[in-house]
Amino acid sequence: MATIQDVAKHAQVGVGTVSRVLSGKGYVKAETRQKIQASIEELNYMPNEMARNLFFQKSGIVAVIVPEVAHPFFAQFVNAAEMALCEKGYQTMICNTYYEQNYEQRYLEMLKRRRVDGIIFGAHTVLDISQYENIHLPIVALDRELGENIPRVSVDHQAGGRMAAEELIRSGCRNVLQFVGSKKETEVSTPANVRHDVFEETMKRHGIPCRSVSAKWPTADISYYQATAARLLEDYPDIDGIFATDLMSMAVLQAAMLHRKRVPEELKLITYDGTNSIGLTYPQITAVVQPIDRLANEAVQLVVDLIDGKAIENKKVELQAVLRPGDTTMGT
Amino acid sequence: MATIQDVAKHAQVGVGTVSRVLSGKGYVKAETRQKIQASIEELNYMPNEMARNLFFQKSGIVAVIVPEVAHPFFAQFVNAAEMALCEKGYQTMICNTYYEQNYEQRYLEMLKRRRVDGIIFGAHTVLDISQYENIHLPIVALDRELGENIPRVSVDHQAGGRMAAEELIRSGCRNVLQFVGSKKETEVSTPANVRHDVFEETMKRHGIPCRSVSAKWPTADISYYQATAARLLEDYPDIDGIFATDLMSMAVLQAAMLHRKRVPEELKLITYDGTNSIGLTYPQITAVVQPIDRLANEAVQLVVDLIDGKAIENKKVELQAVLRPGDTTMGT
Repeated sequence: MATIQDVAKHAQVGVGTVSRVLSGKGYVKAETRQKIQASIEELNYMPNEMARNLFFQKSGIVAVIVPEVAHPFFAQFVNAAEMALCEKGYQTMICNTYYEQNYEQRYLEMLKRRRVDGIIFGAHTVLDISQYENIHLPIVALDRELGENIPRVSVDHQAGGRMAAEELIRSGCRNVLQFVGSKKETEVSTPANVRHDVFEETMKRHGIPCRSVSAKWPTADISYYQATAARLLEDYPDIDGIFATDLMSMAVLQAAMLHRKRVPEELKLITYDGTNSIGLTYPQITAVVQPIDRLANEAVQLVVDLIDGKAIENKKVELQAVLRPGDTTMGT
Repeated sequence: MATIQDVAKHAQVGVGTVSRVLSGKGYVKAETRQKIQASIEELNYMPNEMARNLFFQKSGIVAVIVPEVAHPFFAQFVNAAEMALCEKGYQTMICNTYYEQNYEQRYLEMLKRRRVDGIIFGAHTVLDISQYENIHLPIVALDRELGENIPRVSVDHQAGGRMAAEELIRSGCRNVLQFVGSKKETEVSTPANVRHDVFEETMKRHGIPCRSVSAKWPTADISYYQATAARLLEDYPDIDGIFATDLMSMAVLQAAMLHRKRVPEELKLITYDGTNSIGLTYPQITAVVQPIDRLANEAVQLVVDLIDGKAIENKKVELQAVLRPGDTTMGT
């Protein structure tokens, strides 16, 4: 491989002059510049990785777009994705969208311009999905429908929702409540919403009243969860079973304790996701655990395959969640 | 700004030919290539952000190096840093080192080659710090001493350690224990270690026995915390006050509950960091809360200033942690 010395010799100039041209700093006569550029090209000299990437039209970077890295689910997902990408020689760029359309839009523009090699999209898109189909970059969706041609990785939320419902039924619940996204949010096309439909259907089939309460999309804002959980126990004192995601479940457990509600005798609780710190509560919360690391590994494998130009045969990868029994239900 | 059409016109070729040169795909005569390259230069045409970055020797990317994004402290730090960097027009690359020398080394090499514009270093370095001093990139350290010339952002851990000790003393503790890093780890030069010295000294001054127990560096591995906390309560049944970081504190609280130890009557507990989910336990754990978002904002401001070539006057930014009273102590 050619060195900067080879270029200098070939262009019959000093190494310092070549260096000035490469760095864009300092004055070099236009004629000399052109001579050096011709030598660079003839010798196929690559001054650094960035130049090499420009040449090959590769950045070596995959962007992982999530709503908020501070949220435990996405923290674990990004962590595992970064590790898997690193093993495959890629670096990881992260982008928080905060559910804001303008953030998402801005990121897409930045990503297109900077030409990352691929995107793993785990945010709750608020843009029309045609925007994604028109990007012409390898994209893999986590838990999102971004159109026919974009492969998707998710857990089998249908089975997950059923698992949660059946555990509460086995525990003797007669009046349950689940947290779902807000109206606008549930219109977003994500297979994760399926779990709520299945949960409700399963309860209905067993003649158990099921209330669905709107909650914000995943956020790391703790005070929001605390306020919501406290209000909930006041508004619905007769509820005897709750299905929520991890941070809300922790807040519900805390509120129940503060209200001297006995768990699981008076109130059963089952959580969805099963991120790390949910394992450290007392009592331990029964959880439908998503295999977050495996979701990340599958997403990385798919996006790297797309970057490498491989045909993706199975466009939908669906993994299984598992029930981890805890002390907040009595079914298992 | 010149367009691809301008370049084609200037070089008296078709747009498709310019495009082939830019993409490096397809055959173009060497003579034509050189003509196009001369036109590109004369018109100062930038085909895309990557080319523009090459020209200005800027990537528009800042790397944030942490031990593990899945750890709540680093999840929040990375989240806030990404938001602040985004506001300033930078994208965020994340790198997990997992306390492994070869990961850290590999990342440094990759970063140097790819030429990120700057680095925020929050990992527990296991390399000789001279490696950082020789990088010649803008670097800002979070909670680390990376040498004279590298600015550092951290909280005042001396005040933080004293705060924790005094709260346990006010709560009536007579026999306390704190978790510190392992021997090898405490040799790493981080101002965070200071809190342990101050904690021990303060206890000594009050005639209170203080045991320091080694724990792994911050990790998101929950089962490690559970096993350690359970063993601890068995090994040291007489301890009446514990000082630990968030995940370990949650594990200690869980183990205490399982052992039917009354908190705070028989065991007081104070935690360090005060990350999001620690606020959702019951009882609520008294916490020395680090202003994680502000740490991130300060680090971003410093690294951007360095990138912009500004002189950094105050090389040590020290913020104050605050005591958030909870139910696991009785001092406030």
